[in-house]
Amino acid sequence: MRLYDYFRSSAAYRVRIALNLKGVATSDRTFVHLRMGSQRAQDYLALNPQGLVPALELDDGRVLTQSLAIIEYLDETHPAPPLLPRDAAGRARVRAIALGIACEIHPLNNLRVLNYLTGTLGATEEQRNGWYKYWIDVGFEALERQLARDDATGTFCHGEAPTIADICLVPQLSNARRFKIDLSPYTTLTRIEAACQALPPFAQAAPAHQPDAE
Amino acid sequence: MRLYDYFRSSAAYRVRIALNLKGVATSDRTFVHLRMGSQRAQDYLALNPQGLVPALELDDGRVLTQSLAIIEYLDETHPAPPLLPRDAAGRARVRAIALGIACEIHPLNNLRVLNYLTGTLGATEEQRNGWYKYWIDVGFEALERQLARDDATGTFCHGEAPTIADICLVPQLSNARRFKIDLSPYTTLTRIEAACQALPPFAQAAPAHQPDAE
Repeated sequence: MRLYDYFRSSAAYRVRIALNLKGVATSDRTFVHLRMGSQRAQDYLALNPQGLVPALELDDGRVLTQSLAIIEYLDETHPAPPLLPRDAAGRARVRAIALGIACEIHPLNNLRVLNYLTGTLGATEEQRNGWYKYWIDVGFEALERQLARDDATGTFCHGEAPTIADICLVPQLSNARRFKIDLSPYTTLTRIEAACQALPPFAQAAPAHQPDAE
Repeated sequence: MRLYDYFRSSAAYRVRIALNLKGVATSDRTFVHLRMGSQRAQDYLALNPQGLVPALELDDGRVLTQSLAIIEYLDETHPAPPLLPRDAAGRARVRAIALGIACEIHPLNNLRVLNYLTGTLGATEEQRNGWYKYWIDVGFEALERQLARDDATGTFCHGEAPTIADICLVPQLSNARRFKIDLSPYTTLTRIEAACQALPPFAQAAPAHQPDAE
């Protein structure tokens, strides 16, 4: 398996955590430099027409895209440790937390979206940062309320073992910190983040520890 | 089960299609009027802290949120007909197509995002429509390339039966039509859409056929 990766991509960061949790070797990696536009090079588009990272190339040549689809694939093909609970309602809860980040927060704060704001729309640096902070706060406030009030929340987003929800949470918090967002209102989110970061599979997946980190 | 629904919400539309495909009764429905802001009412926020539709309230009172999490739940609890293929790589392909819509297109064209553009950022009507068209085209171009070149594409996004990918595709195309986007470049997407719309579970889920349609 070969991972097409970029140290600062939150979506790639999710897959790195999942690979580490599963103990799957990630020695084969290609780094796609998003700020240099390498994701729009013809050879990368031939591999992944969406022009996004991550992508996971299987040994038979098939290429998987979209971080959550890749992680579900890893969970189905490498069942231990499970990244989803066993019961259907629990699985729905974990997926909803993950999607609350992957569909409601992250897409609005992608590099390409921020570039459109300042480029095509001529937004100022202040307006761009206001946009970033607004969508982070809307998303995190909802998530904090949801996790704080629910008995199913444990040391991690769901009980006592990390799941796909934590795998999405940690990169999004890391991203928010890079934009200097005040995270003090989100005591449940940051408590769970600390529990995750104490685990080597999470810590080792951090952007700063990647070979392509700047 | 009770579905919290809004006729024009693409995410709710996905769940309506899935319920119809599974033959699960949807007679219990509550309509949450997004344009009137009913999703921010205290009683709805108590039910779904994310303040989004759809939500699915189970008979035991548990509430599921996020359309894709709800659909995966329905697929796990009502296995026939399956909405995902059996093989792990096929499942990853279908989920990636669904997420290519749910994470890359739909979040940027949500009502609340368009309102932020024209409200907080003071974008003109023309800039707002340009934004909408830009993200639709970026997403659909990638999806068209991906589906057109892949032998796994059949009458539907994946083979000869509808999956979660088609369930996401049809509402997004319907949304794009409402914004008068030229869909003629997307011959594979619209061919698949026509195959879906020929099936009553898709046709009956359309916004115009809902009791709350305006």
